Amino acid sequence: MAHPPSPSPSPSPVSPPLKDELDIVIPTIRNLDFLEMWRPFFQAYHLIIVQDGDPTKTIRVPDGFDYELYNRNDVNRILGPKASCISFKDSACRCFGFLVSKKKYIFTIDDDCFVAKDPSGKEINALAQHIKNLVTPSTPLFFNTLYDPYREGADFVRGYPFSYREGVATAISHGLWLNIPDYDAPTQLVKPLERNTRFSLSLSHFSIISLLIVLYVDAVMTIPKGTLFPMCGMNLGFNRELIGPAMYFGLMGDGQPIGRYDDMWAGWCAKVICDHLNLGVKTGLPYIWHSKASNPFVNLKKEYKGIYWQEEIIPFFQSVVLPKECTTVQKCYIELSKQVKEKLNPVDPYFEKLADAMLTWIEAWEELNPPPQAAAAAALPTATPVKK
Amino acid sequence: MAHPPSPSPSPSPVSPPLKDELDIVIPTIRNLDFLEMWRPFFQAYHLIIVQDGDPTKTIRVPDGFDYELYNRNDVNRILGPKASCISFKDSACRCFGFLVSKKKYIFTIDDDCFVAKDPSGKEINALAQHIKNLVTPSTPLFFNTLYDPYREGADFVRGYPFSYREGVATAISHGLWLNIPDYDAPTQLVKPLERNTRFSLSLSHFSIISLLIVLYVDAVMTIPKGTLFPMCGMNLGFNRELIGPAMYFGLMGDGQPIGRYDDMWAGWCAKVICDHLNLGVKTGLPYIWHSKASNPFVNLKKEYKGIYWQEEIIPFFQSVVLPKECTTVQKCYIELSKQVKEKLNPVDPYFEKLADAMLTWIEAWEELNPPPQAAAAAALPTATPVKK
Repeated sequence: MAHPPSPSPSPSPVSPPLKDELDIVIPTIRNLDFLEMWRPFFQAYHLIIVQDGDPTKTIRVPDGFDYELYNRNDVNRILGPKASCISFKDSACRCFGFLVSKKKYIFTIDDDCFVAKDPSGKEINALAQHIKNLVTPSTPLFFNTLYDPYREGADFVRGYPFSYREGVATAISHGLWLNIPDYDAPTQLVKPLERNTRFSLSLSHFSIISLLIVLYVDAVMTIPKGTLFPMCGMNLGFNRELIGPAMYFGLMGDGQPIGRYDDMWAGWCAKVICDHLNLGVKTGLPYIWHSKASNPFVNLKKEYKGIYWQEEIIPFFQSVVLPKECTTVQKCYIELSKQVKEKLNPVDPYFEKLADAMLTWIEAWEELNPPPQAAAAAALPTATPVKK
Repeated sequence: MAHPPSPSPSPSPVSPPLKDELDIVIPTIRNLDFLEMWRPFFQAYHLIIVQDGDPTKTIRVPDGFDYELYNRNDVNRILGPKASCISFKDSACRCFGFLVSKKKYIFTIDDDCFVAKDPSGKEINALAQHIKNLVTPSTPLFFNTLYDPYREGADFVRGYPFSYREGVATAISHGLWLNIPDYDAPTQLVKPLERNTRFSLSLSHFSIISLLIVLYVDAVMTIPKGTLFPMCGMNLGFNRELIGPAMYFGLMGDGQPIGRYDDMWAGWCAKVICDHLNLGVKTGLPYIWHSKASNPFVNLKKEYKGIYWQEEIIPFFQSVVLPKECTTVQKCYIELSKQVKEKLNPVDPYFEKLADAMLTWIEAWEELNPPPQAAAAAALPTATPVKK
């Protein structure tokens, strides 16, 4: 396992933007020591920890963090029969955190992700960059060759239509990874360097640095309308008010025929809905330092059906048309679940189960996130933190 | 005027890839001293110089370059009445060079563009990077979050469909600019820093460096299918066999109501044709050093109608559908000219004239570039270099 870059001697805490409007969601099965490195950037924020696997295990959270923690017993207690839509023994369980949050923005990160450094050696405040991405517009309707036109030093280039320069609201900010890229099992297997990194075999410090230099791209860009992308859940920000109900990570892991496609599923669904509702999706900065490649042999088993099915799933999502009556994310998502059931069930009966779970997810979302007036009228059960 | 970075003490000539398969096309009105800086990278290649404006003026080309030069008299002589489709007093005349070339690849560059340096201080061989972009596939059907997957150190990320990983042939490589970005006149006017650069007012060396650091993005990426982009002709490579006939730079400059939209027009046409024919368009690296911003007040006058019209032109191109019978670039381009005449003529009668010129261009292309068997059968007139 490669080691994350050592922290700077004394990182000074930064002023926390949107402190009261953002939750950090972390799915985990282990003690959260990784938070120590993130302390200067995360400590001002509220954490929602979703404990995966054995609920009797105690997860240690470093002192000084403000958090709520949910294990499987909590998920079952809060959602009742609807808990069936939340995956078990898979990081897909993270979407439970999106459900119980009451904030406008979510940043979700894996517990093997550390603070990366930019080429100048400065520690990257990933959260601050996600916030910057989310609070500035996106440009999905026309490509700007100088990347994010709202970034300092950039602008719209000659020939960019003026009527498009206001952009659209940004729903999703997809961050990237230094050290171990997010490859599928076959690619992990055929990339000796990455395998060497994983197994700590003969990888000199110099090789790590070269890899870094090659991969660091100093850009944020909008993914154009009509184009799908592979959304990775490792380092991801989104506007929960704009796109939250589409951020369902599907049925993966224990008892399911597939794994490691949770974030992909969410990304495909969210992108077609963003395109329909004229919302933006950005990718690029910020980078995090991904410390640990998962075992490619285990991954291959988890991914096998996904790799096979995606050849039919992608054309399906590329051809999805949502009717104009679908004016909210919820309506879009319900319509999408119908189309999944109709078009993907022939691929495998799993998709009927998944389509049903998509509906259950929306029911759970509406129960836990009633519109303001409904919430005031009825005292509906809401999530309560288990531990703080 | 900002100065280009000083050349390295002794740049060593590099081995010239595709030396016999590529022409460098340069439109100009002045002596080509700028070639001195490009000597290590360009000298092995053949240049096609298109002299704009007064044909009696002598253009000096530095010794040791292999070139042919065409002035307006040559254009008239070679094309006869079809010369009307070649713009005069506008860099749009560069497309005449594309017409008379016999090579597979074209690199075209403006004469105020110099060799840029990457952040490590190394001089960038723009031509070599364009070639690299053109000979590796593009990925227009699905977005790869790690940018160009064929680049060393990168790959396709998890969730990228395997059936798309072969990519499609690359038709266009669009390079970028350090120092003076390619902004329209209104943006030039409202960006004081860039105006300062242009007028050499109070711009310290330090400011130039910061600008560079902000703007240098170390990436090449495919512009997704269905997305238009503003193609700049300043630093551009393309595969002439794949997309040449669509690289017509329109009617601009002298006697026309519009300027500075020549490359934009070519870009819009070429992109919809690439999308239809399943060809790729890349943008990003290489950077060149653009030394001189043109006068924003003059530009505003040239661009005025373009800025106004583009609000209708862009939706037109976004909605263009080419019938499946259009299986060659020529057929696509002829169909496009019909649609331009029908749909854009209501915007301004200029577009009827432009649509006719598009047809004339294709006739000229077919005359100068007959299919191999036709060329063998008939001894058609071909272009002859005027000066070598």
